Formats: sequence, C-alpha cells, structure tokens
Amino acid sequence: MIIIGELINGTRKRVGQAVADRDERYISNLAAQQAEAGADFIDCNPGTVGDAEISDMQWLVETVQAVTDLPISFDSPNPAALHAAFEVYQTDAVPMINSITAEQEKLDALLDFVVESGANVIALALSDQGMPSSAEDRVDASASLIGVLTEAGVPAERIFIDPLVTPLGTDSKAGCSFLGAVRAIRDQWPAVHLTCGLSNISFGLPQRRLLNRIFMAQAIAAGLDSAIMDPLDAEMMATICTAEALAGCDEWCTNYISAARAGRLA
Amino acid sequence: MIIIGELINGTRKRVGQAVADRDERYISNLAAQQAEAGADFIDCNPGTVGDAEISDMQWLVETVQAVTDLPISFDSPNPAALHAAFEVYQTDAVPMINSITAEQEKLDALLDFVVESGANVIALALSDQGMPSSAEDRVDASASLIGVLTEAGVPAERIFIDPLVTPLGTDSKAGCSFLGAVRAIRDQWPAVHLTCGLSNISFGLPQRRLLNRIFMAQAIAAGLDSAIMDPLDAEMMATICTAEALAGCDEWCTNYISAARAGRLA
Repeated sequence: MIIIGELINGTRKRVGQAVADRDERYISNLAAQQAEAGADFIDCNPGTVGDAEISDMQWLVETVQAVTDLPISFDSPNPAALHAAFEVYQTDAVPMINSITAEQEKLDALLDFVVESGANVIALALSDQGMPSSAEDRVDASASLIGVLTEAGVPAERIFIDPLVTPLGTDSKAGCSFLGAVRAIRDQWPAVHLTCGLSNISFGLPQRRLLNRIFMAQAIAAGLDSAIMDPLDAEMMATICTAEALAGCDEWCTNYISAARAGRLA
Repeated sequence: MIIIGELINGTRKRVGQAVADRDERYISNLAAQQAEAGADFIDCNPGTVGDAEISDMQWLVETVQAVTDLPISFDSPNPAALHAAFEVYQTDAVPMINSITAEQEKLDALLDFVVESGANVIALALSDQGMPSSAEDRVDASASLIGVLTEAGVPAERIFIDPLVTPLGTDSKAGCSFLGAVRAIRDQWPAVHLTCGLSNISFGLPQRRLLNRIFMAQAIAAGLDSAIMDPLDAEMMATICTAEALAGCDEWCTNYISAARAGRLA
C-alpha cells in the first residue's frame, strides 16, 4: 500500500495557523510522525491562494524535506504553486503532483508540466461531464486520463488514478460504483496505481471511522494499492495490513505476523 | 445477510456436555440468544456418531424448536441423522440441510432426500478431487453442484454454495482464491446463495477476530450473502451491517443508521 500522508493540509485549522505563523516545529513534527507511522509520501497543501500559496508551498516543501527523505506530494490545483514547489524540491525520491483531472482546461494547463517533471501524478476521474456517478463514468474518465498521460510519455507506474469516492449517505450505490470501477481499472491496466481519499464515503453518516475502515478493506480486495489518508490512524493502518494479507500481497503473512507481534493490530 | 447461528455444535466441549446431559436449559438459551442477536437459522450439530447421533439430533431439534420459530439447520454428514431430524421437525419455516458435497458417494446418498425434503441445502465445493485450492477449483465444484441440484429440481434460491475457506497461514492466496470464486459464482448464478464458515481463514494466525472481520467485509463486497457464524459476536455483526451498506444492499443506509442509533456499531 502506497500511503500518501494527508495531515499537512492548510484547510485544517491548526495547520493553516502553522503555515501563517511559519511554525516550523509544528509542520516538522507532522511530517516526522507520518514518516514514522509508515507514510510513503508526505502531502503538502498550503490551503491558501494566489501569491501566498506560492510562498506557502515553498516554505512547506523546505520545512518537510529538512526532516524526512520521503518524497513529497505537491497538493494544489494551481500550476504556479506546483512549479514553485519543484523549484525548491531537493529530495532524491520522485515527488507526486496532486492532482490533474480529465477536464480539458486543467489538462491543457498541466499536461506538459507533468510530462517534463518526471513526477508521479494523481489523476482524478473528473471530466467536463462533472463528478462521476456510476462505475462506468469513473472508468471512462480514467481511461481517457490514462490514454492522454501514457501517449504523452508518462509511464503507467507513475499514474495514480483516483476514481473518486462519493458519499454513501446520498447514494446507496456509491460504494459499489467505486469498487466496481477499481476492479475494472485494475483488470484493464494492471501497472497503473489506484488511490483515493476514502473518508468521503462516510460523509454525513454515523460511526464514520468504522465505515471508512470497512470500505478500505473492500477497496484493497478490489485492487486499490494506494490511499491519501492519515497514517496516524492506527486502526486504519491495522485494517490495511490485514486486508493486504488477505489480498495475497503478503507472502506467508510475514508483514501481518510482524505487525501483530509489534502490537500494531491490537 | 442470511446468518446461520453456529453455536449449538456438540464438538464444542460445553455444548457436547449439554447434549450428553440433556441440559435443555443450556441449549434453549443458546438458541434464544442467537435468535435475539439476529440469526436466520439455528444450526444443530450433535457432534456425536452412530445411534447416539440420531437421538441427540432429535433431542436438539425438539429443544430448539420449543423456544424459537426460526428454521433449523440440520448439521450432519449422516443421512440417517438428517432423516431423523425431519421426523421431529415441526417449525413452519423451511429448514436447511448442512451439508452435501460434490463427492459422488455423498451425492448418491443424499441427493434424492434433498430434493424430496424441499429443504434449503448447503453445498460444499468439495469434489472427488479433494479440497479446492484455486478459485477455478471452487467454481468448477460449485458449477457441478448447481448443475446436479437444479436438474434434480432444487430451485436456485434454496441452494447455499459454500466455496470453502482455507487457512491463509498455509497459502497466501487462500483469501483471493476464495473471493475470486465468490465473485465468479455470484456473476454466473445470481439467484444462488453464497455462504461459508469463515473463521478457517485465520487458523494458526494471530489476531484472528480482526482477520475474520476484514475478510467478511471483503467477502460481502464480492457477493457473499450468508454465513455460518456466531451471531453473538457484536463486532462481526457491526462489520456485516457496515459492509452490507457499502455493498449497496441498504437503501438510504436505513439499517446502518438504525444500528448506529441502537449502539450496535460502537
């Protein structure tokens, strides 16, 4: 499982404050804690706009790379902020661009940059037809993105398709539409990664953390191999470890047994 | 989810004792508790052999039907014990025969009885080739059973295929082989039920209850609609309720929200 640690997000109140105050210690801690907990990428989202976003993104990248060698996920819809992130990025590991979509205007603005940067890229199954509803909508938008990206020269293994999780509370089929799309994309493009920000599934419903965990287990069985999530959520991490063993990704259950011995599944 | 409550099983030491002692109170309590917790069938397995099994099965059936109107699942490999169970069965609801297999000798011994009884039947994906290993083995044995049963006149909706869960600890692909079989059978025979005794997956591994729950969530997403299980396991029941909402079986999440309000998901 490729875990993109989501905690450094300026739309979270405390993080937004730390960005505004240039509170290095707070941000460094968040980065180090996520690295320690098993994140593979540290997402940086300044949560600001305009010129502020550019300097905020650069400060976040500099602050994070000072405490971890993990690659960073540059999280912004603004091409200028993404360019600025690359200007200061010094870690050896290949970073992530979070994100592009199948919307023509956004693709036009970012495709060349994605190709030239050599970065990984999260590609949201969002097209000019709007948010996907059915599994087919998700597969169609994903097919279009994978086509455009691979034709432009992005290798499949750098593409992280996000088929988009929508709330179960407003559409009882939201879970199975997403899982159906994951299965279909996994079957058709085995080398592409599949990721998502999963907690949207439980929006507006009670017992959200239980719902998120059960959905994660199902999504891993369907072929999800990455998630944008909080790696400090120990119950979710235990679910992922267990679901991966069941999905046949853990020979002799070595990781599962080690995690149990280390008390990480209790 | 069609839950077959597994607790009245004479191979469990305390239950075996209760059967030997004709401890009506203990068995009645186990039946009533499982009914209260949401079981749809009460399994009765005397856990004995020969003549004892016949009288023990009849006593169990009489004891259970005295306290609940739920149908009973007659759990024995012995045709004589199954016949004896029907002789004393007085509940209106259609009972379950647990179980037949695709082994020719067992089929020959039980097929006519299954057809004539009009009962539901659990059909294990076990053939003369032995325990299934791959998803294909499971689908082949299931296809053969479904063919024989439906040709003999058993309607699809009375057939509960058990694709057989094997331990993950000795075969890292055991989980995905089972799930692959469930998906394939669900696709090809939508009217047939899919059940299993799921806890075998975690045999020999630590944190068995977590592993069982995560596997249940994945199996429900794959198409499992029944389980032979302990309905008093509140965490498992919460997992099932949540997994069913995610599988699109719970319009507007009505059951899920009711369960949360009743404190059954906490």
